[in-house]
Formats: sequence, structure tokens, C-alpha cells
Amino acid sequence: MRTDVCDRLGIEFPLFAFSHCRDVVAAVTNAGGFGVLGAVAYSPERLDEELRWIDAHVGGRPYGVDVLVPAKIDDSAERAARGEGGLDTMLAAVPEQHWSFLVDLFGRYDVPLPDFEKAKRAGTSARGAGTQVTARGATELIDVSLAHPIGLIASALGTPPPLMVERAKERGVPVAALVGTAEHARRQVAAGVDLIVAQGGEAGGHTGEISTMVLVPEVVDTVAPLPVLAAGGIATGRQMAAALALGASGVWCGSVWLTTEEAETPPQVKEKMLAATSRDTVRSRSRTGKPARQLRSAWTDEWEGPGSPGALGMPLQMIIAEGAMRQINKVAETGNPGARALANYFVGQCVGQMNAVRPARQVVYEMVEEFATALERLNAITAG
Amino acid sequence: MRTDVCDRLGIEFPLFAFSHCRDVVAAVTNAGGFGVLGAVAYSPERLDEELRWIDAHVGGRPYGVDVLVPAKIDDSAERAARGEGGLDTMLAAVPEQHWSFLVDLFGRYDVPLPDFEKAKRAGTSARGAGTQVTARGATELIDVSLAHPIGLIASALGTPPPLMVERAKERGVPVAALVGTAEHARRQVAAGVDLIVAQGGEAGGHTGEISTMVLVPEVVDTVAPLPVLAAGGIATGRQMAAALALGASGVWCGSVWLTTEEAETPPQVKEKMLAATSRDTVRSRSRTGKPARQLRSAWTDEWEGPGSPGALGMPLQMIIAEGAMRQINKVAETGNPGARALANYFVGQCVGQMNAVRPARQVVYEMVEEFATALERLNAITAG
Repeated sequence: MRTDVCDRLGIEFPLFAFSHCRDVVAAVTNAGGFGVLGAVAYSPERLDEELRWIDAHVGGRPYGVDVLVPAKIDDSAERAARGEGGLDTMLAAVPEQHWSFLVDLFGRYDVPLPDFEKAKRAGTSARGAGTQVTARGATELIDVSLAHPIGLIASALGTPPPLMVERAKERGVPVAALVGTAEHARRQVAAGVDLIVAQGGEAGGHTGEISTMVLVPEVVDTVAPLPVLAAGGIATGRQMAAALALGASGVWCGSVWLTTEEAETPPQVKEKMLAATSRDTVRSRSRTGKPARQLRSAWTDEWEGPGSPGALGMPLQMIIAEGAMRQINKVAETGNPGARALANYFVGQCVGQMNAVRPARQVVYEMVEEFATALERLNAITAG
Repeated sequence: MRTDVCDRLGIEFPLFAFSHCRDVVAAVTNAGGFGVLGAVAYSPERLDEELRWIDAHVGGRPYGVDVLVPAKIDDSAERAARGEGGLDTMLAAVPEQHWSFLVDLFGRYDVPLPDFEKAKRAGTSARGAGTQVTARGATELIDVSLAHPIGLIASALGTPPPLMVERAKERGVPVAALVGTAEHARRQVAAGVDLIVAQGGEAGGHTGEISTMVLVPEVVDTVAPLPVLAAGGIATGRQMAAALALGASGVWCGSVWLTTEEAETPPQVKEKMLAATSRDTVRSRSRTGKPARQLRSAWTDEWEGPGSPGALGMPLQMIIAEGAMRQINKVAETGNPGARALANYFVGQCVGQMNAVRPARQVVYEMVEEFATALERLNAITAG
């Protein structure tokens, strides 16, 4: 297989794997695809470690990094990132009723409360979730990334800041950006992006509402001749063939890796994903403050329910949710039924097709093989 | 082009056109596709007339009819259809606050009120909207349809009643059914359906939430070896190629015909559609009582707004909405700005790609041509 993107990035298959797990990134890159490490959960130091590990495991094959630079965030996070008031400023911005809702929720589900005070002191909850998604937090991650031999840097949400585009171009690293509408794509092109990822509303994580089937051709026509990767609802070779038929130069997959052997997905969440149908996801603001598709669970139901104070914005909701989720996952592993009911994770509608644990390498090969079969079928139809 | 569906139905292109307009049905059938007349808006007498017209204009080429048989409807509609209490029973079931909301709405938008009393007496509003969607109403339409040389009868919503399947099979007419989930598809197969239309959430009209990209392969795998048509988000040849790559045996398109030369779409709604982007639709219960994708307009906004009493179920909401919409469209044609703001119609997200008025025949030919181009591109990628 060969598209403009394959030539540009030096890959065999135009199949991109977005993952927070370095093992998945390396496995896909080594299988001929292109692994992209999601950096948002990492501190700069930790990211550097992960990238050194990847460098040591891909033998010079290309991989990339994805950072989250949202357009609109709560002021207190920016101030905290600038060292003004520190993390306390940000934590203080979480209304009391949200903390009480959380305390009550844990009580009702019989899950021991996380030690929020300890988390506050260590700064892990807030650091991990809050400051990285500020422009300043993201800048540190960008600098760390560009010090490695990466083949692509991507902006997961919103237009990449000029600094990101400039520094990447200085080093000859192409810049990608995720978009959910043709208008966003136009803005990204104006900002100097080299590669557009058109992500349909069926995708996991932060999404819009326009489906992949409609969005991809719109974006392709809008940004031509820039290449477009299709994202959202793509977990099989048939879907990959469909995406390329729509005009995409490749596919960007996130969900499908979450149930691979390599994935760091907590075991109880992996189980839920393997059992889930395509109806078991929901677009909810309850984890990050922005609409993000995820497994429907007691967590999303409760935040939509009558007693809920409503989700906060980003990153305040992340501060609440990530600390809580860490505890929920820890407790769920002991078999606690309340914690198991609450546990969830970002995933797209294609979770219904994720029914077996496979090595990431095998996912790549099976997608490429099924792509070929789908194309043969299309050719037979026209030859008919 | 040739799929199992082409062979079974005797058509050149596996491209199905769902339309309430007989001219579109005939034009697509005559162009080598398969026109399907949506019968829900018609009385049995009127449907018979329309089908006679089609018979006279397609020279024996195959076409079909689509009826709406919902699984759950308000009791008063069934009773009215059985002649128990008549239309008054149904009209009496509409709460007073819904009528007042409507009166207030028309006042605020400066649109003269429709003569609801007159409409009640004539029974047109309620007949057109209410009784046809009951099992008894649908049965009459089925009998009228089967008296014509139709090549397919489709159930737009819910499992077709045994009577529909039996009578169709007696006459050797294949039965199709629209589904929004793999579970629905399983039920339809058990009910004896011959052809499944897997309709993604991006489609116009009554839809679920699972996107075409995810739904089609799921349904194909669920009902194999029964053929599946893909619906939702398909208005171009690239999208048709994508649908067939997903495993579909053909495509079922509704929205794309609404801006054709032949379409009976009210002029101000046609204008809105030509100007709309893919972001300008919404899934709303405000027209039929069930979630249906349509143009977002002041009508959908007001029914979602703070003063709204909330949409009723089907068919009561249809009684309110269809009478109101008929008046809105009539008044909008005089240039009334309030009526133009309120006007809308069912349409899918692919409305963003409907930017020019074309003859229906041309839409068919352009889709087939673009399909071939998309396939050439795919072949070039693998030859790469």
C-alpha cells in the first residue's frame, strides 16, 4: 500500500495508532504502521523516559507524539501553570458542591474515598490532569518531544499554537491536527498544519457530532491537496478501505489498541470493552469537561443524573475525574462491585467490534489483509 | 456494477432512492437505480394514484414502496384507526399545554395561526399524520401497494407485522426493513425480512445513534448471507464506494434527492438545505415524537427551549407538528421571516454536500461515475 502519507513519513501501511502506551506505539511502528504516543497524561520527565524507551525499541522506524492544546481552558489552570498561586489556585476553583457530589457518589457505590488531600499535596492528580493541557504545560511536552527523533507531532484538540508549528518546522517534523468539522480544518491549514486528521463523532475521546462518513470527504475537499487521515469508527480492514474510498490518505485509530495484549488498559475496563456492543458508549463531559465519547458506566450515568451538579469545564473536571478514576480502578481490581460499575474509559463505537485480545502487530496485519479482501470484493462488483 | 441485490431485483446500479415524490422514484428507476416511494404521508386512495402514475412512467422497471409501522404508538391512534372514538379521540389526547405552546409560538414568530378547527373537521391533519402509522393504517397502504407491480416493500421503523411479510411473500415481493442496531437486524431476520437497510445515526429522519461506518459491518456480519443496504451519510460516489467496502450490497439514499429538480421540497426549505453545512442538522423529537434528524431551525430550538412542554409521543406529536408545518411552509412562501426561521425538514448530515440543484437522473450517474473513480484510486494505492 502506498499513499502520499506513506511516502512523506516513510511507512509501509498508512495506519496510525494513537495510544498512551509505549508498547503499542512501538509494536505498530515495527509492524509497518505509525505509532503515536498520547502525551497528555505524562509529566515532561516521564514523557522523556517513554520516548527514550521507544527510541530504543523501534530501530529508527518512524513514530510520533500527540499533545493536547485546548483552545479554551479555565483561567486558574493557566495561572497555576505560570506558577501564580500554584496548584492550590486550581484546586480552589473546584466548587464545594462538586467535591460533595463525589464524596456522596463514592459512599453510595461503597467505594473507599481517595485521599484527595494527599493527592493535593503530592500534586499528582492536578499536575497530571491540569497543567499539561495549558499552553505552557503543552509547550514543555512539545520541547521534550522534539528532542527525540519523532516523525510527527499532533495537536489533539484545537489549533496548534504558533510556537508548536514553528519549533516543529525548524526540525523538519510535520505537524498534524485533529478536526471535527470542515471549518476547523480550514483554521488548521491557516495555522500551518501539514496533515489533517478528520475525526468523526463515533470516535472515542473528544469528538464532535459529524460522522466519519460525512466528515472525511468534506475535509478532503476543503484542505486538498493536503493529506487527510480518517478517524472514528475504524477498527477493521473493511473500515480502512471505506476511509480510503472516502478520499483519506490513511487511517488514525485509537480505540482498537485498548484491548490489545500490550495495552495498559485496567483489566476490568478491558473486560467491559470486550463485552460491550456499539451501543455502550456515550458522549459525556464527565471525565474532562469537554464532550468525550467513552464507555457508558455508572460514572457517566451519575454525572447526567438528577443529583449531579453538572460537569465543570476543562481542566477542572479532569482534576476531579482523574483522581477519582485512579481510585475507582484501583478498588475495582479488588472486585469491589461499585467500583466495577463506575469504571470506564474513552472508547469509540467500534468497541462493539473489539471482541478478542490480540497483539497490536496482529491487529495491523489483519487490517491490511482485510483491506485487500474488501478491495477484491469491490473490484468483483464492478467487473460483475 | 453487480451485487446480489442487483441480480435479485433486476437493477443496473445498487442505488436505492427513498423519496415521497413520485417523480424522483420514477427518475431513479429509469436511470438504472431503484426508486422507493415513502407512503406514510398518503391516504390509501392517494397512494393508489401515485403508484398508477409511477407504473405508467417506468415501463416495467422495478420500484418499491416504504411504509411506516412503528412498534410503539399512542393507544388513542390505534383506537381512532379502529374507528373507536374516531379522530376526536386522538385529538383529545393532545394536552392543552401543547396547543397553547403552539399558539404562543406562532404569535412570537408572527405567523398567522393555522385553522386547527378546520383541519380537525376535515381530518386531513390527523389522517395524514396519525392513522397511517398505526398497524391498521399501514395495512391499508400495504394492500394498495401490493396491488401494483412493486419490486420491494419496506418497513421504515420497527419489525414488519406478520401480515405484511405474509402478503408480500404470497405475491413474491421481497420485504426490506430499516434497522439502527445489530439487535434490531436479528429481530428483522427472525420476522422473515429479505433485505436489511442498516441506517447510521447521521441519516435524515428516524435514526439511532450508531454511525454508518460502525453499523454496516456489524449488521452485515449479523445477518449474513442476507444482503444489507447501507444508509446514512451517503450522497456521493465516494460514500457509495465506502459503503460497499464495508460489506454492503448497495446503498439506500434519502436526503440527496430533496434538492433535486424533481423534489417537492418547499422552496424555502430547499434553499436552507442548499446553504446548510453538515453541522446544521439535529436529532429531535419535535416533528414526530421519535428522534428524527432534521434541519436545525427555530422550530427544533423552540421545542428544546426552556418554555417547551416537551414533545409528545408518536403519533400525537405528528398531529401537532404536521398541521403546524403545513401552515409554516405556506406562510414562508410569502416571505414571512418568522415562518422562514421555523421551516425545516428531515435531512441527514450529508446536507452539507447538497449544494446544487440537479436532476435526479444526474445524481445517479454522477454517483456511479465517482464510485468508479474512488475504486481506481484504491487500486492505485495498493498497486503503489
